[in-house]
Amino acid sequence: MVKVINVRQSVFEENNKIAMKNREFFDSLNLFVINLMSAPGAGKTSIIERTIDALKEKFKIGVIEGDITSSIDAEKLEKKGIPTIQLNTGGECHLDANMISQAIENFNFNGLDLIIIENVGNLVCPAEFKVGEDIKVMILSAPEGHDKPKKYPLMFMESSALLINKIDLIPYIDTDINALIKNAKEINPNIQIFKTSAKTGEGIKEWTEWLTEKIVQKRGNI
Amino acid sequence: MVKVINVRQSVFEENNKIAMKNREFFDSLNLFVINLMSAPGAGKTSIIERTIDALKEKFKIGVIEGDITSSIDAEKLEKKGIPTIQLNTGGECHLDANMISQAIENFNFNGLDLIIIENVGNLVCPAEFKVGEDIKVMILSAPEGHDKPKKYPLMFMESSALLINKIDLIPYIDTDINALIKNAKEINPNIQIFKTSAKTGEGIKEWTEWLTEKIVQKRGNI
Repeated sequence: MVKVINVRQSVFEENNKIAMKNREFFDSLNLFVINLMSAPGAGKTSIIERTIDALKEKFKIGVIEGDITSSIDAEKLEKKGIPTIQLNTGGECHLDANMISQAIENFNFNGLDLIIIENVGNLVCPAEFKVGEDIKVMILSAPEGHDKPKKYPLMFMESSALLINKIDLIPYIDTDINALIKNAKEINPNIQIFKTSAKTGEGIKEWTEWLTEKIVQKRGNI
Repeated sequence: MVKVINVRQSVFEENNKIAMKNREFFDSLNLFVINLMSAPGAGKTSIIERTIDALKEKFKIGVIEGDITSSIDAEKLEKKGIPTIQLNTGGECHLDANMISQAIENFNFNGLDLIIIENVGNLVCPAEFKVGEDIKVMILSAPEGHDKPKKYPLMFMESSALLINKIDLIPYIDTDINALIKNAKEINPNIQIFKTSAKTGEGIKEWTEWLTEKIVQKRGNI
């Protein structure tokens, strides 16, 4: 019998071990960690800015920025006085646990309450890699269309919350929001859905109240 | 000295060998092949439909559909009477040359003039894998924002043409189209740029005229 090695499986197993260590580190600091995922240009950075504006009186917040090569978003956040570290993946289309463990080695997390990890813009691979987060949250930009849960099911399956962003564009596009919600719930009946606009601020209150509850829940448990 | 194997490099080399064989096959049939790439929901399928409507009197056109799991787009195109084959990548976030060689084994390309390969919705990895195409073409949806060439440079570098789609949304969004064009040209000075709307039909004439010239050029060369 030839020994068969499922390379992909072993990649995930190794990744999960490191993710568990990252999670233990974050737990030890009483830190709530979100792994924020979306396609390119769905509004991750703008939603992070809105979220920080809404929660900065309650919590100390830091950001881990994942990008292929640039540091545009990290610089934008740093200008606003938000503790930020940039991870450049050098071509990889997602963050993995090992990359986050490098952030842990190079960034001071003491005194923070919430970390938002902005993953690389991609609806596929980021959903496959745990990084040590408490929850995964995804953003779908309304113009991307209502068929996306059927085409990219894993991310919808893995996410605790879905923000349907750029909701202000609804009058001008063909996306059927009710069909989108139905398609998302079919893949993941437990997914919490918020209709948001980082531009107008719509839905940010509902999203950040839900998030506050999650953060407080974790702190209660520790 | 320990022997070092650059796994990623060897993956690309192996892929390129198969891509060259695919290309020879397509050349032998006098077939022009486009590898069409974009983020999810930028409008690949709608642009394919518009392109076929504009060119169907001149050329016989077939489509290779790449998706993680579904066949929504392939069914849409087949209903319109377009010869279509579906490739499901089973989790992979891009098409590679070996997948296209499986399409070659299972699909009748005789009598066709143009093949459009609709890649998986992803701005990162599809740009890394040649599949045997004549040209790569990318779509960026206007709402994705003008910073995308800086964040996902490889796809802009590899593409012969960029379609800035959903241009009808410009009055309602913050994307600076001139900055987007400047950023794209900085990465790739030779990239041909078309402003399109699959919804209103804007720009489809310019794009399909350019494409017609490319197809005719290849036929002249053979």
